[in-house]
Amino acid sequence: MPGNSFGQLFRITTAGESHGPGNVVIIDGVPPGIHLSPDDLRPDLARRRPGQSLLTTQRQEQDEPEILSGVFDGRTTGTSLAILIRNTDQRSSDYSDIRDKYRPGHADFTFDARYGFRDYRGGGRSSARETTARVAAGAVAKKLIHEAFGGQVLAWVSQIGPLKASVPRPEHVTLQQIETLPDGSPNLVRCPDHSIVPQMVALIDEVRRDLDSIGGAAQIVATGIPPGLGDPVFDKLKADLAKALFSLPAVLAVEYGIGFGCCELRGSQNNDDFIPGSASPANPQAPPVAVATNRHGGMLGGMSTGAPILLRAAVKPTSSLAREQQTVTRNGEPATIRTTGRHDPCLLPRFIPMAEAMTAIVLADHWLRWQAIRPH
Amino acid sequence: MPGNSFGQLFRITTAGESHGPGNVVIIDGVPPGIHLSPDDLRPDLARRRPGQSLLTTQRQEQDEPEILSGVFDGRTTGTSLAILIRNTDQRSSDYSDIRDKYRPGHADFTFDARYGFRDYRGGGRSSARETTARVAAGAVAKKLIHEAFGGQVLAWVSQIGPLKASVPRPEHVTLQQIETLPDGSPNLVRCPDHSIVPQMVALIDEVRRDLDSIGGAAQIVATGIPPGLGDPVFDKLKADLAKALFSLPAVLAVEYGIGFGCCELRGSQNNDDFIPGSASPANPQAPPVAVATNRHGGMLGGMSTGAPILLRAAVKPTSSLAREQQTVTRNGEPATIRTTGRHDPCLLPRFIPMAEAMTAIVLADHWLRWQAIRPH
Amino acid sequence: MPGNSFGQLFRITTAGESHGPGNVVIIDGVPPGIHLSPDDLRPDLARRRPGQSLLTTQRQEQDEPEILSGVFDGRTTGTSLAILIRNTDQRSSDYSDIRDKYRPGHADFTFDARYGFRDYRGGGRSSARETTARVAAGAVAKKLIHEAFGGQVLAWVSQIGPLKASVPRPEHVTLQQIETLPDGSPNLVRCPDHSIVPQMVALIDEVRRDLDSIGGAAQIVATGIPPGLGDPVFDKLKADLAKALFSLPAVLAVEYGIGFGCCELRGSQNNDDFIPGSASPANPQAPPVAVATNRHGGMLGGMSTGAPILLRAAVKPTSSLAREQQTVTRNGEPATIRTTGRHDPCLLPRFIPMAEAMTAIVLADHWLRWQAIRPH
Amino acid sequence: MPGNSFGQLFRITTAGESHGPGNVVIIDGVPPGIHLSPDDLRPDLARRRPGQSLLTTQRQEQDEPEILSGVFDGRTTGTSLAILIRNTDQRSSDYSDIRDKYRPGHADFTFDARYGFRDYRGGGRSSARETTARVAAGAVAKKLIHEAFGGQVLAWVSQIGPLKASVPRPEHVTLQQIETLPDGSPNLVRCPDHSIVPQMVALIDEVRRDLDSIGGAAQIVATGIPPGLGDPVFDKLKADLAKALFSLPAVLAVEYGIGFGCCELRGSQNNDDFIPGSASPANPQAPPVAVATNRHGGMLGGMSTGAPILLRAAVKPTSSLAREQQTVTRNGEPATIRTTGRHDPCLLPRFIPMAEAMTAIVLADHWLRWQAIRPH
Repeated sequence: MPGNSFGQLFRITTAGESHGPGNVVIIDGVPPGIHLSPDDLRPDLARRRPGQSLLTTQRQEQDEPEILSGVFDGRTTGTSLAILIRNTDQRSSDYSDIRDKYRPGHADFTFDARYGFRDYRGGGRSSARETTARVAAGAVAKKLIHEAFGGQVLAWVSQIGPLKASVPRPEHVTLQQIETLPDGSPNLVRCPDHSIVPQMVALIDEVRRDLDSIGGAAQIVATGIPPGLGDPVFDKLKADLAKALFSLPAVLAVEYGIGFGCCELRGSQNNDDFIPGSASPANPQAPPVAVATNRHGGMLGGMSTGAPILLRAAVKPTSSLAREQQTVTRNGEPATIRTTGRHDPCLLPRFIPMAEAMTAIVLADHWLRWQAIRPH
Repeated sequence: MPGNSFGQLFRITTAGESHGPGNVVIIDGVPPGIHLSPDDLRPDLARRRPGQSLLTTQRQEQDEPEILSGVFDGRTTGTSLAILIRNTDQRSSDYSDIRDKYRPGHADFTFDARYGFRDYRGGGRSSARETTARVAAGAVAKKLIHEAFGGQVLAWVSQIGPLKASVPRPEHVTLQQIETLPDGSPNLVRCPDHSIVPQMVALIDEVRRDLDSIGGAAQIVATGIPPGLGDPVFDKLKADLAKALFSLPAVLAVEYGIGFGCCELRGSQNNDDFIPGSASPANPQAPPVAVATNRHGGMLGGMSTGAPILLRAAVKPTSSLAREQQTVTRNGEPATIRTTGRHDPCLLPRFIPMAEAMTAIVLADHWLRWQAIRPH
Repeated sequence: MPGNSFGQLFRITTAGESHGPGNVVIIDGVPPGIHLSPDDLRPDLARRRPGQSLLTTQRQEQDEPEILSGVFDGRTTGTSLAILIRNTDQRSSDYSDIRDKYRPGHADFTFDARYGFRDYRGGGRSSARETTARVAAGAVAKKLIHEAFGGQVLAWVSQIGPLKASVPRPEHVTLQQIETLPDGSPNLVRCPDHSIVPQMVALIDEVRRDLDSIGGAAQIVATGIPPGLGDPVFDKLKADLAKALFSLPAVLAVEYGIGFGCCELRGSQNNDDFIPGSASPANPQAPPVAVATNRHGGMLGGMSTGAPILLRAAVKPTSSLAREQQTVTRNGEPATIRTTGRHDPCLLPRFIPMAEAMTAIVLADHWLRWQAIRPH
Repeated sequence: MPGNSFGQLFRITTAGESHGPGNVVIIDGVPPGIHLSPDDLRPDLARRRPGQSLLTTQRQEQDEPEILSGVFDGRTTGTSLAILIRNTDQRSSDYSDIRDKYRPGHADFTFDARYGFRDYRGGGRSSARETTARVAAGAVAKKLIHEAFGGQVLAWVSQIGPLKASVPRPEHVTLQQIETLPDGSPNLVRCPDHSIVPQMVALIDEVRRDLDSIGGAAQIVATGIPPGLGDPVFDKLKADLAKALFSLPAVLAVEYGIGFGCCELRGSQNNDDFIPGSASPANPQAPPVAVATNRHGGMLGGMSTGAPILLRAAVKPTSSLAREQQTVTRNGEPATIRTTGRHDPCLLPRFIPMAEAMTAIVLADHWLRWQAIRPH
């Protein structure tokens, strides 16, 4: 399996480049009988779409999904489901300069080292454009986990540069808060702490005008997850979620629960007490147990506890910069480069639907795995 | 694949519980012709072994490996290699109290939620004892990557509680510095910053006497890695390494390169310039290119750049405590629990060989994958 | 992996139904640098195409392939390669009768038993139309094994009903003999024993006019295969080839070498003697050994010997018949059915490119696997 | 996955050689709660055991299984289950002659071509001794499918050389008929047509005294299989069963239902009519439909119909012969060889439990897959 598939039972396989005809995903393992149409895919694709505001790349793509198979009479059939999203606004001439030079921080050099040459147009397969296919698949996964057990996945921007959001109760954040400001205008940075949004917008605009970019962090929360999801040892839920997030472009760090904060704690400070709980509708066999606090981020022993799953990912600043940088040519000769294509000054706002998609795909996969191997 | 295998081509499958007859690993994908004997496995097993010092659990296991197959006349045959490590010092009576109560921070509850019941003796399959099999397999992986391309993996303790080591040039740290103090005595905490070792030892001893535990962090460094290792999209090297480390017990966070530090940086601050480099002996096809700095942690686009791979993992404080904690029974009734078994006051010193093993296994796997699909 | 993928390293994943928008295949594991264009895919797609003669279904499809990704500047890039073949001649009204009744010999009932409902238009995903995607992928596999080691795969019709071809030296048969008669006209049945072709054509035409169908057998030969391809134990070359052929619709039996003929032989009659041979250019490490005869069909211990690989598959008569048959409705009530859609009176002529494709895909997969794990 | 694993969800991974310390299997995907002890494994291991009669090899092995993990308090835990069977009667000196010569019909040459060298003692990993691990795993699979849906798998010898058994109603054959003759003595050839058993015994004894061997065929029947098991396209039940059987040593051909007999039939002769049936307890969603006849061997579209699954496999005569044969050395020089080790004059009697095991493993795997992806 050379790297273009993810998941075991809910399994996605993708293909497509930034400037090729389009991106396609085949989803294998969608249970039969789920109502599905392109309307289910469009909202998340629109959240991921380039050109949605001045804070993102100005490439214009409608990202209209075509369901090629796996749906009949409006319901999934149980056989493989393919979705095609065509590219329409490639401007390959923008990228001719990067054919022979390596953009700092980018995958140009490593692709050449791996394959001997590369599709340099817009980064080819290394472009975040490949995540279009993931987001489409994620919308299917979201629908599955919601119908199967009421699961929900939301992500938002928790930090842009030094600006950190304050979100005391992450499990209560709504999609509305992430997407829309109190005045009804779009929440361009997708941060539910509306008090800090103006500063975040200003910072991104500043780095953009400065021909620079800025990093940040995203918070992901999954609620309604029944206790017992995940497998011990190698396919721990935390391990699969980490792989899912690290597989996204520009992610340099992932933590769950208290994360790196655990380094400084004692066990007596870190452990969350168990308390009496109620039965889980989605997993009635699980004992009626809950946790008093959630430093453990909803997972123990790599399996869900029923508490909200809390993840955090760090996203580096966009590598492509319109300002001059030092680099070398393919022959190793010193050169300067200035990337004149259309790029996001900050990846975070469009990262949100990608992070939700990958999280939902992992949960859908483990839901199917759980159904397969249960108490006899 | 229900979770007891890891890797695609260099693939390990493990079985075994804390108090069963033993732990076994089958390694599939070991190339033929590598010289291998139990002597190659013993050093890392000894580093992982319980009872090695007062800072670790006092369970006494010799962890003697038996190679059951896959080696003939001292060389690997190319067929599946099995290694068995028997348990010898089980004291199941120690654990009878945890049959009906859930230890806070532990996998007892989630195992019951997943499987309906559990092997409660010493945590069964959730015990870190299962990592014995991983460490044995990791020793094989280390040998493979060293013979194949001169690769080396080292890990060490970089933080215990608030105490942080200072290691300015991680790529120059030696196994000797990690394992031995200047006076020739064993470096019990496996921290190469010897100036802080006494404080770390004192802190662990303090929490131990306090019937408590303490968290910390580990640094992992892989050197000699040729540029181009890894696959784009889902099986990025960073993604597989993150999954590998998160699959280890008690890991709550993983970062590579500048990690969470990237959130606050601008692209112009974060990008590492490319500079002229020399050809890589292990990948002569790669362009003669190097990076001036290493904020990127040796990976771009999910593939290695040839710079040292730098990872950091957070390990929570041991959940099992000899002091009283609040919990519930299997029926959800409030209870108190005091775990009287033998436990590590700090997991970090024994975590080191586990982290090295998983890192080496990922590198070995991607080395084989790289050989399979190369420029034609 | 719920069944729509095949292969480990050269891995195809398909989607598509008979009457949906089209069929798509994602091929993962194509090495970079292979020259590829739609022209490489068209010949085998044309051989599989419906409507090519009076002996096949009259559905008219151009089966024009669109390469969606994985090729740049005329060469494969090493990343996933997607091919889309749109359906253009669906006539769904033809199939309305089969919505509520089960066609004898068909997958209608088992699909309902598996998934609760089905896309009944033309058989949906159970239609042989899904093999379009396989044949496109097979053309890529053929190109890979030919460039990598000079391997070639050919198949032909060896039997139609009671009519058996005589082909004394299968390894000398050419594509020309399979596709074209001596007078330059198309060899409609794809049998290289031209003396029996007229009878075969007449028999197929007779069953067609009789509103019936007829079974037959295909011979598959792979030449130029270096010794040592395949893996011991579960992924024996013979096992993967058998799975590949049995995964094709209507295949009821597969044998290799002497096949069922071995039941009656003694070891002294069946064993093929080894004789001195010459070195294999594609596997210079293999000893200079050959086999005097080829009852073993080119494989011993599940690995290739360097002798031609000889396989034979039985293909049942088309299940869909325009004549009346006894069946039941979805509610289990007795009914009669007459399938009025367009069907092949004999599946064999169009089965040939499918069998070649699946054989080539297995060989490509094992070639990559062989490169990954070799003598060290 | 380099070839030592089989199955997706009920997944076995094996290791071990003929003359190493032993054979081990790790079974991943055993649902929790199944009662299991070594007593469940011993009967089939005894049926596979060498030395059980004069018709088999005289190597003496007790084949006592040790369950290393995955069972607690007599029940499976849901985590990986490992079984070790030690070798005790290796006589490596018997095999020293085959170090430098290739036995005709054997895997010696292909192992050298694949790996550069081989464990030549008793055939190493190519020895049928590796099937010990499969048979142990098969016993677990048998127990699972029986508890889950009342499924049963039986196999028997249907042909030895020219001697063919007559078994008019294969679905009514009992284990008793296969294992025991009417007079209570063991049925050494495992053929339920007791009228032909004496001739079969005599023939095997004759070829044994003649320093020769003889081929044959096995019939496999699976009953109690609910309709709808299997997946369409690549993982058809017939495809996975074929791979399972072809992965066994010496199998040259597999057919199901009417098999090669379909070549000569018309569709109107071959199709089995559907008739009203009753609901399947194991799959209540399946329509109440049955088939009037069973030329289709219990599978349509690659999924089970509820009718008995009927398979037939051809097994070649043992390659190792005590008589002189022509061969070459590793250097390609002509030589003669006489294999003086202990070998079965006919593989069929001991093949039976192997065939049952692999069939049961496929059914167990698809049962779990079916539970994972069902109507929503």
